Amino acid sequence: MSGFAAADSATTQSLGDAISTEDIRNSGVKADDQVAQYAAMLGDDALILAQRLGWWISRAPEMEEDIALGNIALDLIGHTRFFYTYAASGWDKTEDDLAYFRTEEEFRSARLVEQENGDFGQTIARQLLFSHYQYALYSKLQDSADETIAAIAAKAIKEVEYHVDHSNQWMLRLGLGTEESHRRISAGIYYMWPYLEELFEDLELHKELAAKDIAVLPSTLRDEALGRITEVLEKSNVEIPQVKPARSSQRTGRFSEQRGYILAEMQSLARQHPGATW
Amino acid sequence: MSGFAAADSATTQSLGDAISTEDIRNSGVKADDQVAQYAAMLGDDALILAQRLGWWISRAPEMEEDIALGNIALDLIGHTRFFYTYAASGWDKTEDDLAYFRTEEEFRSARLVEQENGDFGQTIARQLLFSHYQYALYSKLQDSADETIAAIAAKAIKEVEYHVDHSNQWMLRLGLGTEESHRRISAGIYYMWPYLEELFEDLELHKELAAKDIAVLPSTLRDEALGRITEVLEKSNVEIPQVKPARSSQRTGRFSEQRGYILAEMQSLARQHPGATW
Repeated sequence: MSGFAAADSATTQSLGDAISTEDIRNSGVKADDQVAQYAAMLGDDALILAQRLGWWISRAPEMEEDIALGNIALDLIGHTRFFYTYAASGWDKTEDDLAYFRTEEEFRSARLVEQENGDFGQTIARQLLFSHYQYALYSKLQDSADETIAAIAAKAIKEVEYHVDHSNQWMLRLGLGTEESHRRISAGIYYMWPYLEELFEDLELHKELAAKDIAVLPSTLRDEALGRITEVLEKSNVEIPQVKPARSSQRTGRFSEQRGYILAEMQSLARQHPGATW
Repeated sequence: MSGFAAADSATTQSLGDAISTEDIRNSGVKADDQVAQYAAMLGDDALILAQRLGWWISRAPEMEEDIALGNIALDLIGHTRFFYTYAASGWDKTEDDLAYFRTEEEFRSARLVEQENGDFGQTIARQLLFSHYQYALYSKLQDSADETIAAIAAKAIKEVEYHVDHSNQWMLRLGLGTEESHRRISAGIYYMWPYLEELFEDLELHKELAAKDIAVLPSTLRDEALGRITEVLEKSNVEIPQVKPARSSQRTGRFSEQRGYILAEMQSLARQHPGATW
């Protein structure tokens, strides 16, 4: 049962609990081109990060952590599927088309999520920065004038809340742990910090959709997200890096050395047998 | 709340629903050396297969499948944690000690689960053979005279039931799909088939523990598991390979080219910083 097909429903909040990718497909709602671009971009960040995190299954420093990072990866793939399914509705495509048959230049992932796992500290550092950004973003997107985006955000934020908590706990544990763990998590934060600012950059697409109350202007998330990140760093006794932001690619992938490799791995199987069950 | 601490409880079945690794640790039950060896061996198969399956996150031929294979991997890591926690109780170790600080020779995984993912068909072929074996095994282990093993098996089998169903569905879909998918799944089955017999081999440890009704003799699982596998292959129109079994290593890893690589990857992080939070 899904109330989603009722396009005039006012109960966005409860839709958030109920939607599935099938609901989105069956609802008959079609994203216009701009909304589709925005939805795809939201999915891109989640998918690339999931790809990075999936690597940790069976390789984390504790068995318990294998499951935690694996679950976060699967949550993010779940969010991707929602956003891609909605984006695909606007282009007469499928979620799989967007995942496997777009080129490197068509993805709009942020440089932060493309960064390498490095050691466990570096991975947790990336989680801390990204999950606080994503939490602030989805909080506001729950009120998007686009009902489908609002419903996806409402569903996803419950999981992102856990991701935030997970990274906060690890920051404290590593920052206040041994000399070695403190040194490594500090190095991880230092490594990831230059890629933080790009998340708060307003692109043309954001501006146009924000004018219609569909998108959130990333710049309006900066104070909240940065404030929370800074608070955790201070509690963890980890220094806030004084480094310049990395050159922004405006999410074009232009300065990314990693995006091509990530996509090559992700897409190779599907591309070997387009249209087949492979 | 856990009824697990009550060593004289007769309700093994309901324990199965309730146990957690903490329950096992807190129960005060200690496995004797043989039982610990058996529990560790059960965990080894699950962990190595999880490691292989985790690779598929974000690399499967469909986004939906990323989540399915990822979930199976996480289920298996969950089972591993139960078995390792119990085994560790007998040796005054932790689950992490067993996962990260045993040598290649101390693992007792079957050669089947160590085999490479190959293409998607090869992975599904391995799933089909292993999940039917594991289902038959856990079915019987629910009646083990060792209450902890019985409880773990009772909990795990619900998930393994899903793994069996997943591999059955894919076998049918690939076997009865396109010419290409049929060719590839047949090749996958042919590749994995020689490693099937080792699963049904009775080791000395099995015999001694089966005499106490604690373990199941693998040879007694052969008819049931092979019968079900054969049935699915026939329905999928995939030929049953006429190939000789691979030389058995009796789970010592002696003829395995892969075990060392898998463990090196899994253990490197924990070993770089033994005892630390890494």
